[in-house]
Amino acid sequence: MQQTDALIIGAGPVGLFQAFQLGLLGLKVEVVDVLPQAGGQCMALYPDKPIYDVPGVPRCTGRELTSLLLQQASPFLPLDAATGQRAHLHLGQQVESLSQVDGGWQVGTSAGWTCHARSVVLAAGAGAFVPRGLGLAELDCAKNLSHNLPDEWHANPIGTGAEAAASLVATHGATPIATPAWAGQHLVIAGGGDEALAAVLHVAQAEPAQRPARITLLHRRDAFQAEPEAEAAVRALITSGAVQLVLGVPQGACLSKQPDGHGMHIEALQLLGADGQAFELPLDHLLVRLGLSPKLGPLTQWGLDLERKQVRVDTASFASSLPGVHAVGDINTYPGKKRLLLCGFHEATLAAHAIATALNPDAPPHLLYTTTSPVLHQRLGVQG
Amino acid sequence: MQQTDALIIGAGPVGLFQAFQLGLLGLKVEVVDVLPQAGGQCMALYPDKPIYDVPGVPRCTGRELTSLLLQQASPFLPLDAATGQRAHLHLGQQVESLSQVDGGWQVGTSAGWTCHARSVVLAAGAGAFVPRGLGLAELDCAKNLSHNLPDEWHANPIGTGAEAAASLVATHGATPIATPAWAGQHLVIAGGGDEALAAVLHVAQAEPAQRPARITLLHRRDAFQAEPEAEAAVRALITSGAVQLVLGVPQGACLSKQPDGHGMHIEALQLLGADGQAFELPLDHLLVRLGLSPKLGPLTQWGLDLERKQVRVDTASFASSLPGVHAVGDINTYPGKKRLLLCGFHEATLAAHAIATALNPDAPPHLLYTTTSPVLHQRLGVQG
Repeated sequence: MQQTDALIIGAGPVGLFQAFQLGLLGLKVEVVDVLPQAGGQCMALYPDKPIYDVPGVPRCTGRELTSLLLQQASPFLPLDAATGQRAHLHLGQQVESLSQVDGGWQVGTSAGWTCHARSVVLAAGAGAFVPRGLGLAELDCAKNLSHNLPDEWHANPIGTGAEAAASLVATHGATPIATPAWAGQHLVIAGGGDEALAAVLHVAQAEPAQRPARITLLHRRDAFQAEPEAEAAVRALITSGAVQLVLGVPQGACLSKQPDGHGMHIEALQLLGADGQAFELPLDHLLVRLGLSPKLGPLTQWGLDLERKQVRVDTASFASSLPGVHAVGDINTYPGKKRLLLCGFHEATLAAHAIATALNPDAPPHLLYTTTSPVLHQRLGVQG
Repeated sequence: MQQTDALIIGAGPVGLFQAFQLGLLGLKVEVVDVLPQAGGQCMALYPDKPIYDVPGVPRCTGRELTSLLLQQASPFLPLDAATGQRAHLHLGQQVESLSQVDGGWQVGTSAGWTCHARSVVLAAGAGAFVPRGLGLAELDCAKNLSHNLPDEWHANPIGTGAEAAASLVATHGATPIATPAWAGQHLVIAGGGDEALAAVLHVAQAEPAQRPARITLLHRRDAFQAEPEAEAAVRALITSGAVQLVLGVPQGACLSKQPDGHGMHIEALQLLGADGQAFELPLDHLLVRLGLSPKLGPLTQWGLDLERKQVRVDTASFASSLPGVHAVGDINTYPGKKRLLLCGFHEATLAAHAIATALNPDAPPHLLYTTTSPVLHQRLGVQG
């Protein structure tokens, strides 16, 4: 099993800066994120919107900030030019388990990667970005991304949960892989954003042998939030009759046992129309494409002292209630807390010093300056 | 008298970002600094050294960081293109008085500027950068920059205290203006850095009628910390005999009453040589050019709760023990405090929110984001 000084959960701006600060203090780090790329919310929600309040950066987009922070953390998360991957950065997987072992923490991810860390930093923002569900109790949240779909569909890399989230973001609108099992069937795709429209276009343009007999786009109203080109193409399919648009808000689902006894099968969705009338939409397969939404997920089960879904920390060390576990950025709370990037950077810095002190109680780190310290210049690989 | 919402003492990086954050919250600000330029320590001590740990800025010099922070704060400290001056930025003057008036604070500077502020933020770093003295009790710290110099010399803009500091930094090595009164006299210049060497060169190259009969450079050892060109030029003057180099550490001064009864006159410096022998250096005029050093100065008299020369604050609001007075950056202390730029940026942000809340208790500000808020876009003068 991999060993490290500090495991960071979250590769958003604050997680990346946490890696930088821990590296500056001479500690080894590993970083895990559920998304397929670094940058967290900045990349998932506003990659191209300008940010004006990062100190010393009068204007940058979420994408540019991520790129700058990756560059800054490069001495400690070095880029392999051949593969395009960064060492110590584990993307597209969610941390699922955290257990205290040998005075440290054993961490396991959804991808099966495990690590023993002497300390852990939660830099998970508003939580892991996972696909948004229909909000129906009948459909388990973790599985409601796709229903009644054949096994070969689930075997492809855009299955469920973290992998699907990864794929969704990576392709900016998931591209479901059509299968022969869809031929002659009724596929319902729920959603009104880029991901849903991309799925509709993909399926409608599949080879005839893999194309469903009937394709329905289900959305709560007759307006989409998507790129104009995608919307125009889907509108054309609706006009031509190749795709049916159904407007309604899901209220429930009619379920039946699978013929083989494994799990449930959705027979129909119960919908509420704009006219206030309830109606049923029978279906063979359901693909939910409502975008991503952050969920605290497994970390609510780790025994952390939470206040309104945020981790309570002290402002000297940003330590949580669990020994050796710190929380920085949007996921924590303390008196005066503001959910701003620059606050997370400060928190990560003080957490790094607290961790370095805890791991080296006999020789706590001095505060060194990157302008003057030869030790820091060596760690950064610069001449000064 | 000028009125403002918040007066910021210190135009270093943290003071500039404080102006930005207060401006974002819709508050009016005024900024005062003893130095003739914005940037504080970054400009006074390491304008050309790279800094590597500003989050999102992988590498920048002190000068570049200052320029970026000024650009960022520009909506609230606008530049007058005609004069090159920024509104609300009061440079080259030290805040000398602070007194509680009408539920706010009345502030007076060494330049005679006064202001009534509803709140005050100390962003004064390690203190005001003022010229370093010889460390002799006989010579009053505030006046030991130049001694026995004729009145017309003191009337020029590089007199004493803040003005001299301004001039020192502005010219990066002060250029004393030679006077006819020096003719035939012995001038001692103390120091071994750029400022001292520039003074030696200026005086040695003055017109004969203004040149001292004897010029001595006094330094503690035979090594200078100066630009190679300046050192080479001074070494040449020493070799030619035009300037005498005396090595010694000042231990005391021989003083006599001025003939007119006003003040004291230095007859000689008592020095300790490298060989451990004491000796005297008789002189007519003394010019101390030992560079700048930060002094807390007047603010130690304002009744602030200090801990080892730092202002104790709470970490939710960065409020000091005086009502409406906050302290951010290197001047404050709290559990976990690290004297890093990025920590000061966080502190300034929380202080800004605390001030805005205190000034508008009935309508405390919401946390708005510069990526999305039309109100912030309007205050910043951007389209979003």
